[in-house]
Amino acid sequence: MGDLFLVLLHHPVLDKNGLIVTTALTNLDIHDIARSARTYGVRRFYVAHPIKALRVLAAKIMEHWESGYGSTYNLTRKDALSLVRLERDLDGTILAVEHETGVRPRLVVTSARGGPKRTTFAALRAQLEANNEPHLIVLGTGWGLTPEVMEHADVVLEPICGPTEYNHLSVRSAAAIILDRLRGAR
Amino acid sequence: MGDLFLVLLHHPVLDKNGLIVTTALTNLDIHDIARSARTYGVRRFYVAHPIKALRVLAAKIMEHWESGYGSTYNLTRKDALSLVRLERDLDGTILAVEHETGVRPRLVVTSARGGPKRTTFAALRAQLEANNEPHLIVLGTGWGLTPEVMEHADVVLEPICGPTEYNHLSVRSAAAIILDRLRGAR
Repeated sequence: MGDLFLVLLHHPVLDKNGLIVTTALTNLDIHDIARSARTYGVRRFYVAHPIKALRVLAAKIMEHWESGYGSTYNLTRKDALSLVRLERDLDGTILAVEHETGVRPRLVVTSARGGPKRTTFAALRAQLEANNEPHLIVLGTGWGLTPEVMEHADVVLEPICGPTEYNHLSVRSAAAIILDRLRGAR
Repeated sequence: MGDLFLVLLHHPVLDKNGLIVTTALTNLDIHDIARSARTYGVRRFYVAHPIKALRVLAAKIMEHWESGYGSTYNLTRKDALSLVRLERDLDGTILAVEHETGVRPRLVVTSARGGPKRTTFAALRAQLEANNEPHLIVLGTGWGLTPEVMEHADVVLEPICGPTEYNHLSVRSAAAIILDRLRGAR
């Protein structure tokens, strides 16, 4: 089975008007997605943000849970946050995965919008079970990933669909559902 | 198909030492779970909190998105939050569903812990598709629902399992996965 990696991208992403922006780092994104990542056996969860001051802040908050007071108050949180690494951008993340596995990961992008050449969750699940290549799932904050990032992907996942037309899940909820569809017990 | 209702309970719930407590109302729980509820066609999402001052605060924050500045800034948020109703407790919520549907809902509880007589997601999904009874899914905050609430349920759902032993998802992530397993496009 190929190892699964996850990255939460804060730049470049779209805002609600389709402009390319940098979003703020959100503490709860890190906690929620780390806990989902830990549940579904993700090997590493990267949080990519271009602004150094925000990476330093994130590191300080995580320190509270990893070695500060929080590490004895809530052991399961420490366990989940141990998967998190801070990176500058997507390229840095790809290099980090390559450094860790010795192989360039296959890039999997996600989008709430449909389009051509989408891979179904079932197909990607089967691929992950059948081969040993590492896969890096890219999650966008704000209003999603830019067309440029989408075009560089090896796999574009189909959007998550419920029985309605509404497609505005939080990135925290989307991450949980994506991991459950790819790795949940069936 | 039976209508699905959701309630997020803040009392009585367990803390990490197994004591019965009241948890704080979290703004992001309301937003994230409302967006998941809207995606998966939930008819109403109840937020139950025993402290009136916190219900008033929640109503004030929601007003921002429903009729204040947020209602023009982000229409999809307004749409999701329109499903939310504030209630005092589980009994009040059950009465509210009964008032809305004319029928007492079947009570579905969730837990990260395994145990006897658990219903699988597939079985509940089939039940929901086959009959017209309303179902109320109860989500606990803190460290989960009390044994007393669990015992009064008609259905105890199996825990969400990934390929690891770790079972500490956030309630936001758990809600998203539960709805996807019960109502997601397959």
